[in-house]
Amino acid sequence: MHHSPELIGETRTETDTFGPIKVPAECYYGAQTARSMIYFNIGIPTDRMPFPLIEAFGLLKKSCAIVNKQFGLDDQISNAISQACDEVIAGKLNDHFPLSIWQTGSGTQTNMNVNEVISNRAIQILGGTMGSKTPVHPNDHVNKSQSSNDTFPTAMHVAAILELQRRLYPALTYLHTELKKKSDEFASIYKIGRTHLQDAVPMTLGQEFSGYTHQIAMGIERLKTSQTRLCELAIGGTAVGTGINTPKGFGKFVAKTLNELTQLPFIDAPNKFEALATHDTMVELSGALNTLAVSLMKIANDIRLLGSGPRCGIGELVLPENEPGSSIMPGKVNPTQCEAMTMVAAQVMGNHVAVTIGGSMGNFELNVFKPLIIRNVLHSIRILADVCNSFTEHCISGILPNTNVLARYMRESLMLVTALNPYIGYDKAAAIAKKAHKEGTTLLESALTLGYLTEEEFNKYVKPKDMV
Amino acid sequence: MHHSPELIGETRTETDTFGPIKVPAECYYGAQTARSMIYFNIGIPTDRMPFPLIEAFGLLKKSCAIVNKQFGLDDQISNAISQACDEVIAGKLNDHFPLSIWQTGSGTQTNMNVNEVISNRAIQILGGTMGSKTPVHPNDHVNKSQSSNDTFPTAMHVAAILELQRRLYPALTYLHTELKKKSDEFASIYKIGRTHLQDAVPMTLGQEFSGYTHQIAMGIERLKTSQTRLCELAIGGTAVGTGINTPKGFGKFVAKTLNELTQLPFIDAPNKFEALATHDTMVELSGALNTLAVSLMKIANDIRLLGSGPRCGIGELVLPENEPGSSIMPGKVNPTQCEAMTMVAAQVMGNHVAVTIGGSMGNFELNVFKPLIIRNVLHSIRILADVCNSFTEHCISGILPNTNVLARYMRESLMLVTALNPYIGYDKAAAIAKKAHKEGTTLLESALTLGYLTEEEFNKYVKPKDMV
Amino acid sequence: MHHSPELIGETRTETDTFGPIKVPAECYYGAQTARSMIYFNIGIPTDRMPFPLIEAFGLLKKSCAIVNKQFGLDDQISNAISQACDEVIAGKLNDHFPLSIWQTGSGTQTNMNVNEVISNRAIQILGGTMGSKTPVHPNDHVNKSQSSNDTFPTAMHVAAILELQRRLYPALTYLHTELKKKSDEFASIYKIGRTHLQDAVPMTLGQEFSGYTHQIAMGIERLKTSQTRLCELAIGGTAVGTGINTPKGFGKFVAKTLNELTQLPFIDAPNKFEALATHDTMVELSGALNTLAVSLMKIANDIRLLGSGPRCGIGELVLPENEPGSSIMPGKVNPTQCEAMTMVAAQVMGNHVAVTIGGSMGNFELNVFKPLIIRNVLHSIRILADVCNSFTEHCISGILPNTNVLARYMRESLMLVTALNPYIGYDKAAAIAKKAHKEGTTLLESALTLGYLTEEEFNKYVKPKDMV
Amino acid sequence: MHHSPELIGETRTETDTFGPIKVPAECYYGAQTARSMIYFNIGIPTDRMPFPLIEAFGLLKKSCAIVNKQFGLDDQISNAISQACDEVIAGKLNDHFPLSIWQTGSGTQTNMNVNEVISNRAIQILGGTMGSKTPVHPNDHVNKSQSSNDTFPTAMHVAAILELQRRLYPALTYLHTELKKKSDEFASIYKIGRTHLQDAVPMTLGQEFSGYTHQIAMGIERLKTSQTRLCELAIGGTAVGTGINTPKGFGKFVAKTLNELTQLPFIDAPNKFEALATHDTMVELSGALNTLAVSLMKIANDIRLLGSGPRCGIGELVLPENEPGSSIMPGKVNPTQCEAMTMVAAQVMGNHVAVTIGGSMGNFELNVFKPLIIRNVLHSIRILADVCNSFTEHCISGILPNTNVLARYMRESLMLVTALNPYIGYDKAAAIAKKAHKEGTTLLESALTLGYLTEEEFNKYVKPKDMV
Repeated sequence: MHHSPELIGETRTETDTFGPIKVPAECYYGAQTARSMIYFNIGIPTDRMPFPLIEAFGLLKKSCAIVNKQFGLDDQISNAISQACDEVIAGKLNDHFPLSIWQTGSGTQTNMNVNEVISNRAIQILGGTMGSKTPVHPNDHVNKSQSSNDTFPTAMHVAAILELQRRLYPALTYLHTELKKKSDEFASIYKIGRTHLQDAVPMTLGQEFSGYTHQIAMGIERLKTSQTRLCELAIGGTAVGTGINTPKGFGKFVAKTLNELTQLPFIDAPNKFEALATHDTMVELSGALNTLAVSLMKIANDIRLLGSGPRCGIGELVLPENEPGSSIMPGKVNPTQCEAMTMVAAQVMGNHVAVTIGGSMGNFELNVFKPLIIRNVLHSIRILADVCNSFTEHCISGILPNTNVLARYMRESLMLVTALNPYIGYDKAAAIAKKAHKEGTTLLESALTLGYLTEEEFNKYVKPKDMV
Repeated sequence: MHHSPELIGETRTETDTFGPIKVPAECYYGAQTARSMIYFNIGIPTDRMPFPLIEAFGLLKKSCAIVNKQFGLDDQISNAISQACDEVIAGKLNDHFPLSIWQTGSGTQTNMNVNEVISNRAIQILGGTMGSKTPVHPNDHVNKSQSSNDTFPTAMHVAAILELQRRLYPALTYLHTELKKKSDEFASIYKIGRTHLQDAVPMTLGQEFSGYTHQIAMGIERLKTSQTRLCELAIGGTAVGTGINTPKGFGKFVAKTLNELTQLPFIDAPNKFEALATHDTMVELSGALNTLAVSLMKIANDIRLLGSGPRCGIGELVLPENEPGSSIMPGKVNPTQCEAMTMVAAQVMGNHVAVTIGGSMGNFELNVFKPLIIRNVLHSIRILADVCNSFTEHCISGILPNTNVLARYMRESLMLVTALNPYIGYDKAAAIAKKAHKEGTTLLESALTLGYLTEEEFNKYVKPKDMV
Repeated sequence: MHHSPELIGETRTETDTFGPIKVPAECYYGAQTARSMIYFNIGIPTDRMPFPLIEAFGLLKKSCAIVNKQFGLDDQISNAISQACDEVIAGKLNDHFPLSIWQTGSGTQTNMNVNEVISNRAIQILGGTMGSKTPVHPNDHVNKSQSSNDTFPTAMHVAAILELQRRLYPALTYLHTELKKKSDEFASIYKIGRTHLQDAVPMTLGQEFSGYTHQIAMGIERLKTSQTRLCELAIGGTAVGTGINTPKGFGKFVAKTLNELTQLPFIDAPNKFEALATHDTMVELSGALNTLAVSLMKIANDIRLLGSGPRCGIGELVLPENEPGSSIMPGKVNPTQCEAMTMVAAQVMGNHVAVTIGGSMGNFELNVFKPLIIRNVLHSIRILADVCNSFTEHCISGILPNTNVLARYMRESLMLVTALNPYIGYDKAAAIAKKAHKEGTTLLESALTLGYLTEEEFNKYVKPKDMV
Repeated sequence: MHHSPELIGETRTETDTFGPIKVPAECYYGAQTARSMIYFNIGIPTDRMPFPLIEAFGLLKKSCAIVNKQFGLDDQISNAISQACDEVIAGKLNDHFPLSIWQTGSGTQTNMNVNEVISNRAIQILGGTMGSKTPVHPNDHVNKSQSSNDTFPTAMHVAAILELQRRLYPALTYLHTELKKKSDEFASIYKIGRTHLQDAVPMTLGQEFSGYTHQIAMGIERLKTSQTRLCELAIGGTAVGTGINTPKGFGKFVAKTLNELTQLPFIDAPNKFEALATHDTMVELSGALNTLAVSLMKIANDIRLLGSGPRCGIGELVLPENEPGSSIMPGKVNPTQCEAMTMVAAQVMGNHVAVTIGGSMGNFELNVFKPLIIRNVLHSIRILADVCNSFTEHCISGILPNTNVLARYMRESLMLVTALNPYIGYDKAAAIAKKAHKEGTTLLESALTLGYLTEEEFNKYVKPKDMV
């Protein structure tokens, strides 16, 4: 049987419509948070509601407090709320947000957690008694003209964009820059291309890296295609999207205030029913993160395969040695940054499926998979950003070509035969390559034996540098 | 043990670099296709390479034949190839494309199947002998300046755009139009909103449908965000992206010719290495289809729940009766169009995972999950388009509101109490609702008993039409 | 706008509770099938209900006809039904099952399609008039004591087991046998192991293949863990699981009859509510197929990497050459069987997600994602079986070790240093390997230079054959 | 640009083969852990390696220390290691395991973290100097006869079984017991069944709950089908599965010791190559968790739909009220436990995809997605266990039937007409139901008007209690 957490130490009493409940004296949260901790003791402490969402709530509640002044909220109360919000935004009150992700699907309990913390902190600022709900009431003042149903999705969008802006875009830009550098550095390093994992025609290592560079450039572009929709905010829709109990224009004013606070182009969502009942735009964003994960999986796989060896692998690249690779095999250095990257990519693909399922299962006026959805989107953004930084700094930037190996492959490869197609036709060229392959000889030897060309012709036609 | 299919009837001999092989006399395909049928007898006949891809190959090969004239291809040969391509495009030769999706991951065998069919048909047009490779050679002429590695991804992009243009966009536009009509028709029908599946505050049925309408509008917009990248074609990259054995500008000329043949804005891919080695853009498109599936799942689920009953469900909507619903329960009419829709949505989400995995596993210069990827993308487009048409015509267009039920819920709901919040505060409003709920009375009775308001005040504050 | 298919040629009139409708004169199906073709024109002709399901329906309907004799069904009618069922089972009437997978989620229309075809064929056998419903009525006789809701899930289980038995188990056994042969053949071939794609300590090629062999053995075992639950049949539950309109024991008798017809251990499902409302067992089976796909992906990836080259890859294995690999690069032979395998594996993983989603979304007494679920399960079974046969016959059986390459790697590898750990400690062993790596020398040279061992000691401690 | 974490406060110097590095003086971990913190600063602090894995490592290292006595490990060292392990097992040293999940894919760094913490703590116990590696060396003593490559997968299996045993099985048993109670309690409560969300024939509420009960019983059974394979341990395989540097029988002895320490039936894995290179059994287990998630999604969805209302939904069940449901709509009580459950189910499905992808991408002798895989498996187990406890205690146990509503539906439903099929045939029964539906009358009235039966016959045939 399951037991709820017990309180130790000093307590005070908080109340909600369900009655009184004890909370730790030093905590800002109130009755509904305390109740949620009892009823949703799931995955704690690991699976707490992510802090970027709490921060976004801080920004939102501050914006609402500012806008609510126009609609009659007392200046002193509004200012105290704003001041409390600033502490939430700065992460100073993170300990007061203990709730699990796995709570009500609307995130109501987290909205109330935010309301309670802000009101109690504002009460404290104004010299009142915590838990008294005066002079700052969590519902009537902090949540004024709002509902969980419009604040939570608003905070989701704000949090996602904040994290994209400060984490993922810079990390991708850094990765792109370093890949581009390598692509330029390697512009004259010739190598054998590979298709089907089999030797193919030549190219430069710079060309190969230009593919990776382009993938990241496109990854950034893809993320930005959802930006317009991400900037649309649900706020103002309140309970079901009609904006009941909310003054006209509230959503527009809040979006504008948020815009001023963050310098991000937030706007009022054009259809509030869609904004509450669906998270299609979160699924869309998750899709762009999924595509990015696909790109990164390819890049990291290539790099570790190209760096495989040192003596029994492909070995075209020398990867930086950052740590001892094995607890038993001394001297072994593993492509660990690539491994972190590919694991993160797999996680992002899994997170995307969770977001897809949660996104698809809204009913009527509300999607109640909100905490699941934002958890996975923020998780994907965070680990992608961190791993891109790590991978760039500790792997990409330090990659060196193994020029001996690259040159050896160029000499030995049979695939230069392709250059002969236009001169002697496909069938004869194939015969030369097959013979060399069977007999372990070079293409030239094989070509001469078969009598299809002179040595002079061969050397004229088969020039790697003309083939890229 | 596994046995290969045997040939029955008249045959002729075709040859490739592996030697001679018999093919049915009446078939246009040659040795490599025949070989593939033996070596990849997987999922046949169900899992054949999709015809829109074959059609796209027809368009591509025709464009190449036209462009190759500038680069020395004999006019007569070029024209015969074009004529054969026209038959491929028109679907007249579909029986000659028997290969399985589950073949080589580059689609080489399908490229060769196309080359063989076109060359043999062109030979026939020019009065030659099928299988003789003269005067039209499958490699030297039909595949001139091309590789499987650039033609297959080019055909993938062309096929996807063609199917989007002629199937999915029209179907989504149709669905959008009909949803918009319903949203307008239902603009003055008041109803109880529902959040958490629980009764909530009022709204109009038109508002609810406006959410669906907006979802579809955004679905179209999301699909179009990948259009620029989809229009980029790999052709000209040949084997590894360097364009070996291909005249300068070949890709650009072919894209331009395809553009003229289809009126679609195809362009030369800016990075051919990315275009062969990855299918990030296909993953991106699949992501947009996945988001669309998420939207459609929500809409179809809502509609069948709103139409549930007839007497023991929610019953706000009357759905069209298209067929007897049950083989045992007479008179029962089921939301079958919604069911087809939700099944398709689930399939598209599954297909997306397959595309994601396949897309992530390219190595070096080539992604060899090409047939898997295009199969799933085309499948998703096709079934989404068909089910949107079906759902719109046979369900959405015929939806009627069940006005009796809608009105009854409005009378009985407790959630209108929310309108009292601004007047008597959250806690008292909650008390009124709780009391009415417990005692099975109306809100007015409860409010009067509790003495929080007069009847006059109640009626002044609680007006459904003011709440939407 | 969407248009329904038009009938061409002679027709007859069939009726259902919705009224008369024309069907092609030569077709056995009736009104409900015809209606479904109009209302669910989705993904046709590709996405037709899979034939193994139709076959299973044939077996089920025959069993019901036999059992119904005990419960009053006229002998002559029963026999005619059985005879018609035999033709269905043999696939002779496949053309008469034209319906889409994307129909009603209970599969009612396919159940009716089966009832109609069998009744009309039985009528014909008995000399009656097709469409007259006499002397054999599709509902009253063919569907007697049944509902779509219990027949469709029964047919799902029967079809899945049939396909496992005749396709997948033999294919896996074949693959297992050939892998085991290779593992034995390669028992004394020494090679460098690889971890993190990097050179590691030695092992034998036989050991490596023993891992693959064990994976397949476990794959078979995993599939069989769901067998007990798969053998449980829903039949007898009728509409909601209560067995309404069905004689007591009907389900048990039908399971017993099916058991006799197929020699498979079918039993009456212990809880019919679960058997109609969920397809957890199908999700379970799909999970086992997913795990198998995971195993096969690993094996196929290893084999193509080990066979990479011929000159610029790992090259330890020589894979059979089955076809020309490239349309532009002559002499190139690709691991195409591995590619088909990995594509199939990715598809099965995607199919599994579709099954998972469909399986999770049942409501109340019925899961209405039945056609989706069985389509994906049967598809996964089919392509896994086919690709395992193809991969075994055309790849595994013909694999040869490249003994020159294997021996060269053994000579050159640095990882034999691990053998020194017990003698000189981890840190000194690491130093030897690092020095050899940096200077491009052998381990022996490095060890001597560092003075950690004598040549005699080195040769005594570092013996590859003692290391496996 | 990315910056590594900086050390504050007192430090000491630790060394590894890469040289010296500073660590906080009070920390037990050493150089390799410190290095990993710098090089894998990804998702910290949220995404730390899960503690059940650390605990399992404690059990494993203790078992190895005990077994190593037989193979020459000094008794005093072995005992000190065991004592340190006990502290690890008890969670006392959790703060000393700071590493990210997103590190090397073999989990080498966590194996070294464990070795370092245990050796330093053992050194401390024995009065030595932390960081001196004497008298207890992290590699030579704590890791004796082990490799990351066999310890990490062993710890994965041990951790998964521990968590299943102490968390998930008890939670499922609790849920099963309470569902069974409800099924028994509700055995005589008649209700209208629903298929396609539409009214169907009657059943009892107890029957409906028996379906859920059976699902959970099967869920437990399915989890147990993988138990045999989960109990197989990789230990003894060391670097690549050959058991290099390990005494014969080491794995067997360790499994036996672990068995004694935990009372769980661990055994030596029969194929060590499979045990290192694949995690098929983890994918299998994840598949069973996925199927369980599918079951739970169905159950939770049903319960919230059956509890929908209070006045405008289905309303057959009264769910416990645990908290205020809405911050704006007073009196509204939401199915929040169901929402937590369905969100967890979606997460588990997403986690399963991550495990599937990671499981499929092993190469050669090692799968390097180990941390990803165990993270997701442990996460799924943990949140499933917690949510099952929460859902059972706070929802299932308190569910009450809404008898008024249930009875009203029974009176009003049209579906009882099915009982007439055997007496008047399907077509006439359908006509009765259709007429009643169209005219809003009862079935009896409709039947009499149509003249198909007398009132006496009707009442004799249509008895709900005979229909279940």
